[in-house]
Amino acid sequence: MDALSYQSLVTGAVALMVARSFYVRVKKAPEGNETMARIARYVREGAMAFLAREYKVLAVYAAAVFALLAATLGLLSAGAFAAGAFLSLIAGFFGMKAATYANVRTAEAARAHGKPTALVTALDGGAVMGLCVAGLGLIGLGGIYALFRNHEHLATIVHSFAVGASSIALFARIGGGIYTKAADVGADIVGKVEANIPEDDPRNPGVIADNVGDNVGDIAGMGADIYESYVAAVVAAIALGLTLPIAKLQQLAPSVSEQELRAMAVSLPLLLATIGLAVSVVGIFITRALKNLPPARVLRLALIVPPFLVVLAAAGILPGLGFSSGTVITLAAGAAGGAIVGLVTDYYTSMGPIHKVAQSSLTGPGTNVIRGIAVGLESVAIPLMTLVAVGWISNHYLGLYGIALAAVGMLAGTAIVMTVDAYGPIADNGGGISEMAGLGKEVRAITDELDAVGNTTAAVGKGFAIGSAVLTVVALFAAFNMEVDAVRRAKGLPELVLYLTDAKVLMGLLFGALLPCLVGALTMTAVGRAAGAIVEEIRRQFREIPGLLEGKPGVDPQPKVIVDIATSAAIREMIAPGAIAVLAPVVVGFVAGPEVLAGTLAGALVVGAVLSLMMANGGGAWDNAKKHIEKGGLDGHAKGSDAHKAAVVGDTVGDPFKDTSGPGISILIKVMGVVSLLIAPLIA
Amino acid sequence: MDALSYQSLVTGAVALMVARSFYVRVKKAPEGNETMARIARYVREGAMAFLAREYKVLAVYAAAVFALLAATLGLLSAGAFAAGAFLSLIAGFFGMKAATYANVRTAEAARAHGKPTALVTALDGGAVMGLCVAGLGLIGLGGIYALFRNHEHLATIVHSFAVGASSIALFARIGGGIYTKAADVGADIVGKVEANIPEDDPRNPGVIADNVGDNVGDIAGMGADIYESYVAAVVAAIALGLTLPIAKLQQLAPSVSEQELRAMAVSLPLLLATIGLAVSVVGIFITRALKNLPPARVLRLALIVPPFLVVLAAAGILPGLGFSSGTVITLAAGAAGGAIVGLVTDYYTSMGPIHKVAQSSLTGPGTNVIRGIAVGLESVAIPLMTLVAVGWISNHYLGLYGIALAAVGMLAGTAIVMTVDAYGPIADNGGGISEMAGLGKEVRAITDELDAVGNTTAAVGKGFAIGSAVLTVVALFAAFNMEVDAVRRAKGLPELVLYLTDAKVLMGLLFGALLPCLVGALTMTAVGRAAGAIVEEIRRQFREIPGLLEGKPGVDPQPKVIVDIATSAAIREMIAPGAIAVLAPVVVGFVAGPEVLAGTLAGALVVGAVLSLMMANGGGAWDNAKKHIEKGGLDGHAKGSDAHKAAVVGDTVGDPFKDTSGPGISILIKVMGVVSLLIAPLIA
Repeated sequence: MDALSYQSLVTGAVALMVARSFYVRVKKAPEGNETMARIARYVREGAMAFLAREYKVLAVYAAAVFALLAATLGLLSAGAFAAGAFLSLIAGFFGMKAATYANVRTAEAARAHGKPTALVTALDGGAVMGLCVAGLGLIGLGGIYALFRNHEHLATIVHSFAVGASSIALFARIGGGIYTKAADVGADIVGKVEANIPEDDPRNPGVIADNVGDNVGDIAGMGADIYESYVAAVVAAIALGLTLPIAKLQQLAPSVSEQELRAMAVSLPLLLATIGLAVSVVGIFITRALKNLPPARVLRLALIVPPFLVVLAAAGILPGLGFSSGTVITLAAGAAGGAIVGLVTDYYTSMGPIHKVAQSSLTGPGTNVIRGIAVGLESVAIPLMTLVAVGWISNHYLGLYGIALAAVGMLAGTAIVMTVDAYGPIADNGGGISEMAGLGKEVRAITDELDAVGNTTAAVGKGFAIGSAVLTVVALFAAFNMEVDAVRRAKGLPELVLYLTDAKVLMGLLFGALLPCLVGALTMTAVGRAAGAIVEEIRRQFREIPGLLEGKPGVDPQPKVIVDIATSAAIREMIAPGAIAVLAPVVVGFVAGPEVLAGTLAGALVVGAVLSLMMANGGGAWDNAKKHIEKGGLDGHAKGSDAHKAAVVGDTVGDPFKDTSGPGISILIKVMGVVSLLIAPLIA
Repeated sequence: MDALSYQSLVTGAVALMVARSFYVRVKKAPEGNETMARIARYVREGAMAFLAREYKVLAVYAAAVFALLAATLGLLSAGAFAAGAFLSLIAGFFGMKAATYANVRTAEAARAHGKPTALVTALDGGAVMGLCVAGLGLIGLGGIYALFRNHEHLATIVHSFAVGASSIALFARIGGGIYTKAADVGADIVGKVEANIPEDDPRNPGVIADNVGDNVGDIAGMGADIYESYVAAVVAAIALGLTLPIAKLQQLAPSVSEQELRAMAVSLPLLLATIGLAVSVVGIFITRALKNLPPARVLRLALIVPPFLVVLAAAGILPGLGFSSGTVITLAAGAAGGAIVGLVTDYYTSMGPIHKVAQSSLTGPGTNVIRGIAVGLESVAIPLMTLVAVGWISNHYLGLYGIALAAVGMLAGTAIVMTVDAYGPIADNGGGISEMAGLGKEVRAITDELDAVGNTTAAVGKGFAIGSAVLTVVALFAAFNMEVDAVRRAKGLPELVLYLTDAKVLMGLLFGALLPCLVGALTMTAVGRAAGAIVEEIRRQFREIPGLLEGKPGVDPQPKVIVDIATSAAIREMIAPGAIAVLAPVVVGFVAGPEVLAGTLAGALVVGAVLSLMMANGGGAWDNAKKHIEKGGLDGHAKGSDAHKAAVVGDTVGDPFKDTSGPGISILIKVMGVVSLLIAPLIA
């Protein structure tokens, strides 16, 4: 085993051990009184039941793809696919299990010890997910590298691993997204709007499902998503390192031999991921240590700073290994680009624009919704320009390989980004539990503050995810072209030339453009439909259970019915959009050929980038505009006013935007990219 | 003068004479009682005042561009630009003037003679616009052809003409769109939602402005838009005919000499436009004659049938001139594609989907808006697939030139499409006037029916416009590449090769994607802001004018204040998005070069196609879902119910979608295409 294999596997293993220690620490913390424990158990059981059902469906899917891959690309490919998928599933399992312990303990910590301890408890819970995601990802990739780095089918093995990771992420994100938003919207419509009872009120039978949703959507789904981003970025860079003409890699290390150069291009992404994970582990401990500072500032820094530390570390290590200064500059561009995209997201979802959205609520829900969509559309501009600049710089220094490397640089701090991302819904859940268990206003104020910070960090995290996704897909797209060419060269066929004015490419472009729309429509409709069913059931319970709405002591709602509705709906509705994402590139590739498939990828990329950014930022702006009004940001229009009701409508629209359709579309384009790359040899 | 020049100019002149006869006929019809005449005068004066102010701004813009073109590309180019712009302005002027006479006369015809006469009156008014648009367009293009067909700079002259047409259309559409929706949304919010008075109630000071808006947006703006589509499609085909390598035109007429082939490729679009206009004039008379049949059926046929008649005529004429059967098939594909896109639009805006949107109103405005957006996203799929199929077929038979020709085939019936399009807002205005003048329920029922049909035909018309826009831009895009190559060849430089995997092209693609978003955001924000100002003013009048809201006799609102607010806002707010559209390709082209500009065009095309289709169809679905509830489509939830109020919110969101941002984006991509084509020689 060479040094890098060893380093990556050891770093991954250390990360998993740290994750285990956090897990144990969270589980040992006190759980609070009996009511709290009971509510937490409901939430945990609901979440685990959903995961169990989801995993059953995914097992069938994985078995089918495994068989297909074994038959076409061989057992190694099928095995790598299974490994990619399996590691995603266990990261999601342990991460979510930790989160469902941490939520109630965060509430108890807030009650017994105050904000700093609550913050640390929620962070510890999130860190389990963060470290599992990055640790398992690195172990998987490092393991493949250790075993197969000199194997002639290394490319296919790596691509298969990525397809395993991506397709699980796709289903987990869409299924979890439908669940969480259907429950959230359904509970809010009847609770907040119709019955005029507060959020998380124990009388509302939808509240448990809403809290389950935070776990299956924003934690398990998000974890699978980030794991996939991490894997796909590294794989895209490896794929380009393997297939680009050697002349196009020269700038990476101008003075080494050709063979060495290729080995360096293939190993660099893994090296960066290893450095990134090591930095992140340290970062997580530093973040915990800063628990007495204002949480908003600490967590914002925790997202922005680590990528730069990775660049610093890389600047110290890479030149000694023979890499050019352009390599370090490219990584810096990626890290800076990620930070800018994150900060712009932060701006659009927590500053000026949300005041305008709040203001527009004064003239009713119509103008609120118009303004929110406008904010979402506007928010696309600077991130895309930033990505164009990052692409330009990295292409200038390292060519197309540089674009993939910039994405790796952007994602180098994955473990800590994911920790902070998972922290948010844990705090949110903690708030829900404290409300349902009647812990009082002071406790709720602490969890509310932690939750509000979580909303912003979630938006910043999404900015990173989408930004890196765009660069990754650009790289995957180039890798697809190279892979087809490599196969054609081997067969003595002419190269694949993708002219933008070729009618095949142009028609592919238009066809690709409709795929994100279709996935958006299907997921949004699914949320609407499932939320409608939940609304009906909550209304029924309020109507038919005497004394429930009045809050008569001893009268309890039936939350499990809602949990079942949400679970069945989410499992059922995730199939169609997931199938489109996986099958579209296969069908287009085999029926219409690689030129049309390349156009399809490019069309899906641009439309997908626009829609997912717009939905993530618009959704975040609506959510925080509503919160702004609730905190008294609009003089004379407090919670319960018409303006507030208008803002709740906007938030309802934004919910599936930001947590279902937007993330679904952002994974769609990556799934299409890795699937295309995998089938490239078959359609060349 | 050759035969085709003669035929096109004569056909154009005949169309204008027919238009004049309709104009005279409309003006001679009785105008009704004094109240009606007074209201109509208010509307006419408001509309003409807007046009006068808009034209002043456009004159400054045109003068600046004229000077710029004269200095860079010569006086002929500047003159052609001015001609393209001027013809657009006078088509808009006469068309709108006719419409502002026809509206009140439609109401009077409904009162005195019933539905058939009212239908014919509205159609006659619309025909003035339809025939002016197509007649002036054909005279302009035919005149250029007659004068310059053998001129060495024919390409530049034709492109300049198109830029004149396109940029006027852009400003007219955006300015008119902001006006009409700001007034509509503003009047509705205070009138329907807050004060609970019916639409078009004379007490509402915003009603006159709303009716003015129908004229300046849906008639003058739409007219400029359709004129531009017509010109751009013909110009794209001519441009490709002039610049494509001769081998790529061979399939058009395999047996003729090279020189003759190019002449045929350049003249064919003009010939088709001439046939199309002749067919349309006949079609308009036939449509009028069918006035006793149900209007919905007649007008739907009037939109769908003419393109097929043009194909039939072409099938009779073209083979005799030496054109291949592939040419006729391509035209048929274009006509069929247009019909399919139109029918799909019809489906999404008047059938199943609107019931689902209506149904979703039962759970509130949030789910209504979510469903409407989902319908909009879903509605993108079949039209784009249809355009892919049309592109595929036409490319198969005639190469890239075929794609341009298919767009011409789709637009061949422009005169009648525009007639039916302009009919809608005339009927709508007629309804408004009959309401304000208190003509009673029976009259209102007639105008309501005519208006409802107009909503659907407007949606179908938009489908045609967007469908042809997509094909036209694909063709413009190819023409841009050819034009740059022609210049480079002349200079002895290597050809422009646009590889989809070139980082420059990819970065352009991402940059282009953000432009439609920015224009969408700016226009939507503009509507929101202007509507907000109007809401404040209407509220002020209701508050400060004693007896107004109670309907005390002799107490009148002050509509002119609202008209002024809307006019100033629209003129001010159209500048920024218009400037982006015109300047973006210029800046990108000169700063970053033709590869990036090509990518930018492609990125803007796909995102623009998706957003404009989504907005047009989603907007139509919301509007008609609301109407469906008003007509009693939801049992137990009539006008005024919570479900209806939720549907009104969706309609408010849909208003700027379908009439401001969507059309603005659809012109944006064409403006970018023609501007790029024009500057191609300068940046080659």
